[in-house]
Amino acid sequence: MKKLHITIIGLGLIGGSLALAFRQNNKGCLQVTGTDADRLTREQAVKLQIVDIVVEDVCDSVRDADLVFLCTPVLQIVPLVEKIAPHLKQGAILSDVGSTKQYLQEELTKILPNHIHYIGGHPMAGKEKSGITAADKDLFRNKWYILMSGAKASSQAIALLEELISSTGAILTTMDTGTHDRCTAVLSHVPHLAAAALVNLLEECPDPGHGRQLAGGGFRDTTRIASSNADMWADICMTNQEAISDSLEKMQIMLQGLNEKIRRGDRQAVHAFFHNAKMRRDELLACLPENSD
Amino acid sequence: MKKLHITIIGLGLIGGSLALAFRQNNKGCLQVTGTDADRLTREQAVKLQIVDIVVEDVCDSVRDADLVFLCTPVLQIVPLVEKIAPHLKQGAILSDVGSTKQYLQEELTKILPNHIHYIGGHPMAGKEKSGITAADKDLFRNKWYILMSGAKASSQAIALLEELISSTGAILTTMDTGTHDRCTAVLSHVPHLAAAALVNLLEECPDPGHGRQLAGGGFRDTTRIASSNADMWADICMTNQEAISDSLEKMQIMLQGLNEKIRRGDRQAVHAFFHNAKMRRDELLACLPENSD
Repeated sequence: MKKLHITIIGLGLIGGSLALAFRQNNKGCLQVTGTDADRLTREQAVKLQIVDIVVEDVCDSVRDADLVFLCTPVLQIVPLVEKIAPHLKQGAILSDVGSTKQYLQEELTKILPNHIHYIGGHPMAGKEKSGITAADKDLFRNKWYILMSGAKASSQAIALLEELISSTGAILTTMDTGTHDRCTAVLSHVPHLAAAALVNLLEECPDPGHGRQLAGGGFRDTTRIASSNADMWADICMTNQEAISDSLEKMQIMLQGLNEKIRRGDRQAVHAFFHNAKMRRDELLACLPENSD
Repeated sequence: MKKLHITIIGLGLIGGSLALAFRQNNKGCLQVTGTDADRLTREQAVKLQIVDIVVEDVCDSVRDADLVFLCTPVLQIVPLVEKIAPHLKQGAILSDVGSTKQYLQEELTKILPNHIHYIGGHPMAGKEKSGITAADKDLFRNKWYILMSGAKASSQAIALLEELISSTGAILTTMDTGTHDRCTAVLSHVPHLAAAALVNLLEECPDPGHGRQLAGGGFRDTTRIASSNADMWADICMTNQEAISDSLEKMQIMLQGLNEKIRRGDRQAVHAFFHNAKMRRDELLACLPENSD
């Protein structure tokens, strides 16, 4: 049987981990080619045996691929697809791992020739560390991996992609791009903005020297995601503007109301706000897969 | 040499951990009496050997004490001190572990007789779990323990309290109540409000079933403190209203500005906001004691 040829473009944490997971769990059945714009990353991919073959030129890397995974920051994906589209094999499957999906599905549908099957994806897996050296073959195990419905793809192409994703140990689910983007705004993007704002609020601390002594585990955890990659998050904000902006406004209204309750000394209402949050969070966590990240 | 008599009122996580740490690190030199309004907690204090003696009546518990630690939620402290004040020994030292300090120092100074030495304290230690069963003799080790300056206390009383606190392995520091309250508003109280608001924002998620699948490690960490005790946090908001409200307004202005940058698609400005937060946080964490909580 002919080996399945997979190409991964962008060998960072997610791209590198996909390569490792695919190879580990499908030994002998597939060949993984990797490419990255960064020379050092390509060298590390060889040295750390992340992929089977490293190719420098992105167009060369996709010519022979049955499946191509785009694992670059979101705003690089559209120009990248414009560049590689003429070099894709007839009937190739294209997927990506970007955190915002509606923008990508709309733009890529315009660009791609009809014979290419595009199915957007979003693995709910990550680490504070980024880059190829953080790649981990078990990154996706027991984590949700969301594939977009309404894809421009045949059912055979979808089935093949699903089979491959499942081999990483991820739990597959399907969502439409609009729901995905509005939900991630609430569950991921706005929390990120809030974490960054809480850190930047430190400049309002009247005594930074003493202030540092008061930064405990609560502050560290609440702001952990503010240490993530600024480029990736700026791209997310630029490609999910409406949903993020709407959710942020709702959060602002909520905080405004809470502030009024505090100002007028309404302990009962403030208590209800905290109690409600505690109940809701405890209920949500009970539904998450174990070790979900 | 006569044993030092210590009474701990409120045998929750902090009170119970103080009792364990004092006894563990000063064997034979002191006697720790504990009391709690809750019968079950008193029974557990005996069973788990948290204190040397459990006393039911709070007034009885303090008669013989050289030092008294108040470890109840903040709003219970003033009525509690009104109740026990007539029963305190001449020259006794009184401290507390409340998270807001200016309100307590002002109120307690009005109530306490002149012969009592009051020095407010705030251990920067905690856990998500609360209650006596979470008590831990090493909870304070390598954590900041802040004592308030401007205390109504003799230098001998302050020195004795400092010696005792140091025996738990905590790192002592001093701060005035105003600085403490304004800094904790920024570093602890507003992050708590934001975490609770982020959880409550879930009701804006257009598809809660799918939304749950998108709640990853970022969401879990950012909102961890929203699972804390609602009573404790409502009390904090009621006793540090001005500083919390001011800091929350500054955060609101910051989020408003960020939202405008997102709406107008200003990637550079959004990137700078995230980059600034990342730098600031990484710099802050480098200054924290290891395993600080």
